[in-house]
Amino acid sequence: MNDTQDVDARALAWSRRCREELLGSVVPFWMRHSLDREHGGYLNCLGRDGRPFDTKKHVWLQGRQVWMLAKLHTDVERRPEWLEAARLGATFLRDHCRRPDRRVWFCVTREGRPVQLQRKMFAECFYVMAMAQYARASGEDWAMDEARDVFSWVRAAAADARLAGRPVESGQEPLDSLAVPMILLNLVGELDGDFRGEHAAVAADCARRILAHAHDDLRLVLENVRPDGSASLGSPEGRLVNPGHAIEAGWFLLDWAKQVGDTRVARRALEIVEWSLDAGWDREHGGILYFLDAQGFSPVPLEWPMKLWWPHCEALVATAMAWRHTRDPRWFRRFEQIATWTFEHFPDREHGEWFGYLDRAGAVTHRFKGGPYKGCFHVPRALWLTDRVLAQDGPAPIGPA
Amino acid sequence: MNDTQDVDARALAWSRRCREELLGSVVPFWMRHSLDREHGGYLNCLGRDGRPFDTKKHVWLQGRQVWMLAKLHTDVERRPEWLEAARLGATFLRDHCRRPDRRVWFCVTREGRPVQLQRKMFAECFYVMAMAQYARASGEDWAMDEARDVFSWVRAAAADARLAGRPVESGQEPLDSLAVPMILLNLVGELDGDFRGEHAAVAADCARRILAHAHDDLRLVLENVRPDGSASLGSPEGRLVNPGHAIEAGWFLLDWAKQVGDTRVARRALEIVEWSLDAGWDREHGGILYFLDAQGFSPVPLEWPMKLWWPHCEALVATAMAWRHTRDPRWFRRFEQIATWTFEHFPDREHGEWFGYLDRAGAVTHRFKGGPYKGCFHVPRALWLTDRVLAQDGPAPIGPA
Repeated sequence: MNDTQDVDARALAWSRRCREELLGSVVPFWMRHSLDREHGGYLNCLGRDGRPFDTKKHVWLQGRQVWMLAKLHTDVERRPEWLEAARLGATFLRDHCRRPDRRVWFCVTREGRPVQLQRKMFAECFYVMAMAQYARASGEDWAMDEARDVFSWVRAAAADARLAGRPVESGQEPLDSLAVPMILLNLVGELDGDFRGEHAAVAADCARRILAHAHDDLRLVLENVRPDGSASLGSPEGRLVNPGHAIEAGWFLLDWAKQVGDTRVARRALEIVEWSLDAGWDREHGGILYFLDAQGFSPVPLEWPMKLWWPHCEALVATAMAWRHTRDPRWFRRFEQIATWTFEHFPDREHGEWFGYLDRAGAVTHRFKGGPYKGCFHVPRALWLTDRVLAQDGPAPIGPA
Repeated sequence: MNDTQDVDARALAWSRRCREELLGSVVPFWMRHSLDREHGGYLNCLGRDGRPFDTKKHVWLQGRQVWMLAKLHTDVERRPEWLEAARLGATFLRDHCRRPDRRVWFCVTREGRPVQLQRKMFAECFYVMAMAQYARASGEDWAMDEARDVFSWVRAAAADARLAGRPVESGQEPLDSLAVPMILLNLVGELDGDFRGEHAAVAADCARRILAHAHDDLRLVLENVRPDGSASLGSPEGRLVNPGHAIEAGWFLLDWAKQVGDTRVARRALEIVEWSLDAGWDREHGGILYFLDAQGFSPVPLEWPMKLWWPHCEALVATAMAWRHTRDPRWFRRFEQIATWTFEHFPDREHGEWFGYLDRAGAVTHRFKGGPYKGCFHVPRALWLTDRVLAQDGPAPIGPA
């Protein structure tokens, strides 16, 4: 067996492992424990064994779970129970989480009474994502109407800081966040189905804005840059690096570039993933650090040295896609390094699903499976995509990597 | 030498050690590195060696440093350079940090342009604290006028959630935070000089409201309780325990009780400290955990297992006061346990001052000495008070502990 055959065989084995984890452990956990048959929607604050430790419903996770279940139904298997579970969340979102002014609550009670509105615009984004994919899975037009309606608010808010976010004071340095063009690019893909449809120009603009965060001189992706794309290295905000987020941006960009046939951006996307893994991989303990400072200052966020589930999920997808795109065995070695560490540390063999939060050394610090920011999303999305990318016969590389 | 004499001798040795640390390491660090002669105020984001990693000024720390320097001047030694350094901050606060509507910015640029207003009311509180103590140290009446003026807003905001804080939505459970009566009690002490003056009734009401957070059945102090004082154990907010904060509440209450001669509250204050140390002390690694869940669920804050400088500072003060008040050697043993761990882990022997953030095992995770929430406050306040409490001949206990 030559090297390429060996890599292909290992890729297929990892693909099977991801699919087994998805269908045997992760999706069953959410289907068994989260569905709220009494009030609709999902209980998303679930302890290690699936019992709820809070009945409040966090709308990011309500939206993301609708999206995931609907995606499983369209892309993995047409199981009626998945579509029905997606409907349970979609109708709860529609009936209790969006307001007439097209804003979406961040958190509601189990019954759907409002608890909190966030100043950020992400609850609205996950609402759009949920409704668009639910419409595609169910054929119910009302959901796509909802998606388009709230998307119009998201586009306006992304363009005008007065609509969402903190008030901008005169001494505040204007900085553009990586998150905004990333989520907009994502939403265009969900609304149009791909990046060549109605909102193709919006997607291209998002790609351009994401690329402005990639700085060759630093070999890093900065979370926040000046509106002209330049680095603002005098403050911790300007120096903030979130390797997992940058890696996610990398595979978003690679996906966009492959669809529109942009060789240059595809190469750039691979550089972004490579830089972020070079900087973010913890050589002492393994795993990907949560935050870094671009100039080596002590990062300010208290959780910077922790190992969170989602950067590892993004790195699985990104390195699998990079290998599939380039067929370069170095990318497969990187994938295997990440996959090995991830599968050794995050899955809970006893109760299913994955732990979310580990300390730097890799020990579990938080036992819950679902919380205000972790739900039925990153783990199943990564397992589904990694399975698909590793198992498929990929298209020929569109250019030298 | 009998046991009591031995304890007294060790208390004096710890007292000297605290004073040496205060005057030899901690205060010199801030005097050397933080004073902004060019723009006024203090650079409060300082790396391990005192070099700034951000020039923004965080107003909590501006106010707290003014207070601390003025307190050193009135209570430790009348050094003109301390008073002058306090003035540098007090005038910067007055000229750049308060608004005509009596609100106080959370963060300003080095030059004093506004960066951010917080929805919470603590910037205003630390402004009051700074101005009252600066007035006392300097004899400058304008500062006490400022303190009283902004205090009137703080009292209004503490009574009416519409003036500060997040909007209250219909599904949000109304919970009272421990922080509000604690800071108000503190401010009354600063404004009046003690708890028997103009605002004595406010202070007594604060003591009553703090006590409502202490729950015998749990042997815990809950951060958030219902307005009637009952526990809300269905949510992580209602179950949240912050041992360091509760310990601080304990010594605030003990101080109040001793001044007003309330034996019952003094006993209760000691229970609060004892419960919080019993629950918060990490039997595996030593040190005080940052957050707990009252019913043993996995705490939600990512930083829950970290060891932060300030809970240890509060525990030094509280246990020293508990021993001085009761003369019970068990309290001195608890003081020594905390002091030994604290002095082994937090001080930076190379560059002075203390590290602020350690992982659960006690390793330094964040090298900076000053940041958005750490400055010239908890460490010097604790060293000053611990020195004073351990060295003085305390009054006779006011009742059996």
